Amino acid sequence: MFESAELGHAIDDVHYAKEAKKLRSLLLDAQYDLLADKSFPVVVLVNGVDGAGKGETVNLLNEWLDPRHVRSTAFDAPSDEEITRPPMWRFWRALPPKGKIGIFFGNWYTDPIVRRAHGALKRSGLAAEIERIRRFEKLLDDDGALLVKLWFHLSKKGMKKRLRELEKNKLTSWRVTKADWTNFEQYDRYAKVSELVLRETSTGDAPWVVIDGSDPNYRAITAAKTLYTAINGRLAECKVRREDAERAKKRKKAGGKAMPENTIATATLIKTVETKRILSDLPFEERLSKEKYGTKVVKAQGELALLSRSPKMASHSVVVVFEGMDAAGKGGAIRRVTQALDARRYSVVPIAAPTDEERAQPYLWRFWRHMPRHGRFVVFDRSWYGRVLVERVEGFASESAWTRAYAEINDFEEQLTEAGTIVVKCWLAITKDEQMRRFKEREKTKYKQYKITPEDWRNRKKWDDYIEAASDMIDRTSTSLAPWAVIEANDKHLARVRVIETIAKRMKERL
Amino acid sequence: MFESAELGHAIDDVHYAKEAKKLRSLLLDAQYDLLADKSFPVVVLVNGVDGAGKGETVNLLNEWLDPRHVRSTAFDAPSDEEITRPPMWRFWRALPPKGKIGIFFGNWYTDPIVRRAHGALKRSGLAAEIERIRRFEKLLDDDGALLVKLWFHLSKKGMKKRLRELEKNKLTSWRVTKADWTNFEQYDRYAKVSELVLRETSTGDAPWVVIDGSDPNYRAITAAKTLYTAINGRLAECKVRREDAERAKKRKKAGGKAMPENTIATATLIKTVETKRILSDLPFEERLSKEKYGTKVVKAQGELALLSRSPKMASHSVVVVFEGMDAAGKGGAIRRVTQALDARRYSVVPIAAPTDEERAQPYLWRFWRHMPRHGRFVVFDRSWYGRVLVERVEGFASESAWTRAYAEINDFEEQLTEAGTIVVKCWLAITKDEQMRRFKEREKTKYKQYKITPEDWRNRKKWDDYIEAASDMIDRTSTSLAPWAVIEANDKHLARVRVIETIAKRMKERL
Repeated sequence: MFESAELGHAIDDVHYAKEAKKLRSLLLDAQYDLLADKSFPVVVLVNGVDGAGKGETVNLLNEWLDPRHVRSTAFDAPSDEEITRPPMWRFWRALPPKGKIGIFFGNWYTDPIVRRAHGALKRSGLAAEIERIRRFEKLLDDDGALLVKLWFHLSKKGMKKRLRELEKNKLTSWRVTKADWTNFEQYDRYAKVSELVLRETSTGDAPWVVIDGSDPNYRAITAAKTLYTAINGRLAECKVRREDAERAKKRKKAGGKAMPENTIATATLIKTVETKRILSDLPFEERLSKEKYGTKVVKAQGELALLSRSPKMASHSVVVVFEGMDAAGKGGAIRRVTQALDARRYSVVPIAAPTDEERAQPYLWRFWRHMPRHGRFVVFDRSWYGRVLVERVEGFASESAWTRAYAEINDFEEQLTEAGTIVVKCWLAITKDEQMRRFKEREKTKYKQYKITPEDWRNRKKWDDYIEAASDMIDRTSTSLAPWAVIEANDKHLARVRVIETIAKRMKERL
Repeated sequence: MFESAELGHAIDDVHYAKEAKKLRSLLLDAQYDLLADKSFPVVVLVNGVDGAGKGETVNLLNEWLDPRHVRSTAFDAPSDEEITRPPMWRFWRALPPKGKIGIFFGNWYTDPIVRRAHGALKRSGLAAEIERIRRFEKLLDDDGALLVKLWFHLSKKGMKKRLRELEKNKLTSWRVTKADWTNFEQYDRYAKVSELVLRETSTGDAPWVVIDGSDPNYRAITAAKTLYTAINGRLAECKVRREDAERAKKRKKAGGKAMPENTIATATLIKTVETKRILSDLPFEERLSKEKYGTKVVKAQGELALLSRSPKMASHSVVVVFEGMDAAGKGGAIRRVTQALDARRYSVVPIAAPTDEERAQPYLWRFWRHMPRHGRFVVFDRSWYGRVLVERVEGFASESAWTRAYAEINDFEEQLTEAGTIVVKCWLAITKDEQMRRFKEREKTKYKQYKITPEDWRNRKKWDDYIEAASDMIDRTSTSLAPWAVIEANDKHLARVRVIETIAKRMKERL
């Protein structure tokens, strides 16, 4: 993989000056086009051998670009806000919005490579990390982000030569530390691991570009050209796609036949008869009397309160997700849960329309930002499952977007679980008749009128579509790490007690 | 101050049940009205004696309110992301947006009171902290936030009794720790300091409400009533104000005379002849040849680069602000500055229209969120000074808003400076003729056309107003901690060198 980067590429100063001038202006134009187009972000990964000119090249790119619309982030040791969240949290946090360029130093590749080279990560562990990275980059790519992955290389000889030269010069000798020589000694091990990682993560959509770092002129031109070509190519694609869409629209208006959606073939969803039966064949007639409820709910809350104060919560957090049809009783259930908790330790996140900062990011970004530190609870009133429920049914998300969401969500929850988060997901199930009863009741009670909107009535008409979407969701996202609890909720008392008991049970399993 | 809270208020259970039911529904209604009105946030401070029911009351409020629109935040020891920023950063970060309620435990009052009671803060130090708090709360109040400050009190006897009771009961004895008894021993000292602080910070707009914490029923009803009355009162005020504005508008439309703006009398700005002369009598004709520039700029950048790598940067950060007329050369100057810095250590923040998350917060919020950690640089291309420049001239901010901004900004920069931030502010001054020359040049060059918009031409017509605003700004915000550097910029070379030299000089003074 690295052989071609050891051929000793070089560009002399005269050619460099000419090339650089041209590239600079092309790159800047591309940056402003990107800013105006605003349809995708650019994520530039900068990795490679120490001393191969990573820092220098990025500084140069920042000089050539308009630095106001570039954000370079270096990731050192994680801060204490980062350390108790999933490892990817800090990278999600730093993602550039659409139209901007984010340069990531010391990114998601650094830690796995270093740990494997030092022997702190087994072969199988590295394979798992690589799989995680592939999924994350696939998510970014699917969401439209442009990934540019630059690997700066130096041969072992070249690295030694460079360190010696720096040491000799009075002005630069301070830059060579003991750690540099230690790294040098481990060159072969690093090279082996790096090569494996690069090979495994060079996908068609986001290939690695290995750059010979020995000549400053060559590496600068190559990096800039790679970035320019990638941005410009993507901009052109976007334009073509928009024009196609425009034409298809016109054709449709003119009465012509609509062209099929131009997406990658998506797996057809297998009908999930079983789950649908699960959602409709629940013991909806079961009831819990007010008296029994009073005792039971207090007991369940007491248990939850005790668990929430467990010393083991110091290395865990809890995320509770509520989904269900309109009027299924999510709000009421949430209040019975939070009653058991200390207000200092929980927050409730109601999912409404995304803000404009959220719209400029991949879909899951607006949930990642709310992920709790250890010791804390976050309760979601509706959640990332909106993607495969309302967005699917109403057509807000394309078919390819919502079908791939199942895997993205499973991956997201797996990351949370690995970082000590207990993920509890409750589907509150009611019958269609019960929903009607509650809608009418809400319309009558002045106090509850704010709870019923024309949208609720519109959603009701699509009841069967929602049930189908919910069935698929449960089928595809009920994992051993984060299973769905389907809770019959025609009786509010029963539902509330079961919700609290479910959370307590899941916590007991983990704490 | 605390006497009336030691009278032994109590509400029996029968009355409590009746009152609570009524209050609950009123409070919930007020919360939904607030949510619909969306014109101000509610900041609830919860302070007082340990064991006086702070936690219990807040949990109850969360139970009575819809917890989805309440955010309770407890502030323990600052995280390492918080510790290297000004102390108020963490509170700014947690402010609720308009329409929502934020409950602050362990807020900005906690640390000064604890430190003074322990003798770690002198009398004069406490006075300074109080002054800071007053200014911060004034800012929130001026911005429209509703502040509700609750102090839960217990007499010394009452505190002892409570601790004894908790200890006796098997189920609650775990709640009493050594620290509780130590606190009890220091009761008198705490009481003295608290009383002073409360007296000094009980302002007309944000008075403290001292609540007797000995009876759970009484304190719950009192806290809820206080909150309800405050929200409801403010909602009514807002309604009246909107109706007044509506009527004034109609009257104006009907040809009537407009009523004067209903604001608190604002200080009339004294004309600043001196500063205006400073802005116009600069040695604009000075020039720096291309050759000399080449040498000088590299030298200045070298010095800045060296300073940026100083070990002392571990306890400092740098914030550079660029302001100036359109086409004054801010972008070019910024690039020459960042060229000297490591891309991993700086970010450039171009100030554009606020996002909707930013619009739901006080004006300075969108700048606070970008404040750097120690070791880092943030460069602002336009800044918080927009309030007293473009927003003043174009009438986007009311006169009372921009006149009070001078004090708010000075306070903001003082806090930054105290936390180790070096604040450098550059005004790039050009003449009106030079601006015209540059506008025309931009129109000619294809490559620079994106830089010239109709807005630029509109702004130019208000040249004198902008100069007046800039003069006032420099007069009122050039402080010893964060002075303005007025840099003549008709010659770009000269300006760039001076900008870099200015930053280096300010860093040398502090490092």
